[in-house]
Amino acid sequence: MKLEPLMSYHAKLAAALDVGSGPYGQRLIVEVDGGEFSGPRLRGRIRQAGCADWLTLAGDYGYLDVRATFETHDGAYIYVEYVGRVEMTPKVQAALAGHGETAFGEVYFMTAPRMQTGDPRYRWVNHLICVAEGRLSPGRVDYNVFAVVND
Amino acid sequence: MKLEPLMSYHAKLAAALDVGSGPYGQRLIVEVDGGEFSGPRLRGRIRQAGCADWLTLAGDYGYLDVRATFETHDGAYIYVEYVGRVEMTPKVQAALAGHGETAFGEVYFMTAPRMQTGDPRYRWVNHLICVAEGRLSPGRVDYNVFAVVND
Amino acid sequence: MKLEPLMSYHAKLAAALDVGSGPYGQRLIVEVDGGEFSGPRLRGRIRQAGCADWLTLAGDYGYLDVRATFETHDGAYIYVEYVGRVEMTPKVQAALAGHGETAFGEVYFMTAPRMQTGDPRYRWVNHLICVAEGRLSPGRVDYNVFAVVND
Amino acid sequence: MKLEPLMSYHAKLAAALDVGSGPYGQRLIVEVDGGEFSGPRLRGRIRQAGCADWLTLAGDYGYLDVRATFETHDGAYIYVEYVGRVEMTPKVQAALAGHGETAFGEVYFMTAPRMQTGDPRYRWVNHLICVAEGRLSPGRVDYNVFAVVND
Repeated sequence: MKLEPLMSYHAKLAAALDVGSGPYGQRLIVEVDGGEFSGPRLRGRIRQAGCADWLTLAGDYGYLDVRATFETHDGAYIYVEYVGRVEMTPKVQAALAGHGETAFGEVYFMTAPRMQTGDPRYRWVNHLICVAEGRLSPGRVDYNVFAVVND
Repeated sequence: MKLEPLMSYHAKLAAALDVGSGPYGQRLIVEVDGGEFSGPRLRGRIRQAGCADWLTLAGDYGYLDVRATFETHDGAYIYVEYVGRVEMTPKVQAALAGHGETAFGEVYFMTAPRMQTGDPRYRWVNHLICVAEGRLSPGRVDYNVFAVVND
Repeated sequence: MKLEPLMSYHAKLAAALDVGSGPYGQRLIVEVDGGEFSGPRLRGRIRQAGCADWLTLAGDYGYLDVRATFETHDGAYIYVEYVGRVEMTPKVQAALAGHGETAFGEVYFMTAPRMQTGDPRYRWVNHLICVAEGRLSPGRVDYNVFAVVND
Repeated sequence: MKLEPLMSYHAKLAAALDVGSGPYGQRLIVEVDGGEFSGPRLRGRIRQAGCADWLTLAGDYGYLDVRATFETHDGAYIYVEYVGRVEMTPKVQAALAGHGETAFGEVYFMTAPRMQTGDPRYRWVNHLICVAEGRLSPGRVDYNVFAVVND
């Protein structure tokens, strides 16, 4: 069992809307304003609409719940959804507020993306369990995605 | 147990992206391009970003899975999510494609919205089970939302 | 738009396990130990395994997240899932602890069940949005389920 | 970014109930009849009630959606949930039907578990993104779980 690089992507982060502390914790909705993904077998753009990060804060961690639509360079749509965990260190909070950035591996910032498509050229993405590491910079999040595969 | 009017809202529907037949059925992503809601105790606008309808088609029914951000006229954010069912009659399909419209009660088009917010002025929305009826017209969906309350 | 009686059911509640306050609030897992459902078009038993109520407490409300397997008298399996809201009054808390009971309509205790099956005899349940009212007595929960239908 | 062993566990699989082809595909509910987990920092038993695997079949893959309650040897409850993917080869299908077994790494059988608890001794599990590989034998499934951590 090992991690195999699948793709990298970044998304532009728009407003972070503070929904406040509701029944499931303090929730933020971070609107996504498009982006791009690129890897050996997958490349294209992230659509602007229908993408957001529903983030719940609890203690010193943020719990991500993301939906996004990926559009490949050759016209397929891939529905991407994931949960994630990010350690809300002062540096992460500053980066989310537009000041400074974090590097890959600097804090705990991991997700577990999964994908759905009916396009025959990309049907293989349906079968994968993936994980990703993230980093923040002003108005932007970057991820490296790996497929979890057998040795 | 009875239905009590809560609010009405409409949303502008942008593109319907055909994700194709993946592991959970044929999926469409209907992007939402803003809207407005209005009722005795709730009014404001639906944000453009972070709202979409993840729709799965099976047989002659569509299964809705929606997330949206409502912003009240006085500055609170309410996270709205719901599942729904819509009978995909020829008239519904035509309306989705921009031709003609359906009336409330004409086909089976029901949802079960739930809301989350931490804003003290609207905390009561967290406690409600709601249902709604929908209707389609070109580029637009309208809903009447009712709270399910005790007699 | 109106409520049409669909069925009633009860479930035996076994242990309430306190998972404690995690990232999404204070969670209880209420194990279900079987039950029965009955209505004009639906009757049978609730299976003992694979059924539970994942309950999150926040303020003076409980947020239900339930999965159950219904087995009809004629051998079909129906997967039932729902969210719900229950006002955690002292009387509700006492009933959950095995002391006393609540009546239908006495507190806010509502759910929004949805069902899935592939059995041709019951395929119509897939198409329904439903709501239910609940009541508690020692070791037991009862629900009246209504389909939300057009006038 | 790397995989770090966290624990192994097995669960006894009881009946596989065929719910049939509903709105989201052909669904099986595989009831779980308890089990055990063991690792350097986590050990205990899987509760019998409230655990099941909601499995959707599509093409030659199965899509897992699992909920389980883990009870540690020292009395904490951990709510475990995950999605997964399993390649439904003839050997996997035979093993599910009680004939023969598969080895780790033999087919694609991966999950992405996440955990929730409020117990102060185990709060660290809330923060982890995990992945696991699975294998089947008659009436039993085994998993090796790894935490996804920074280098």
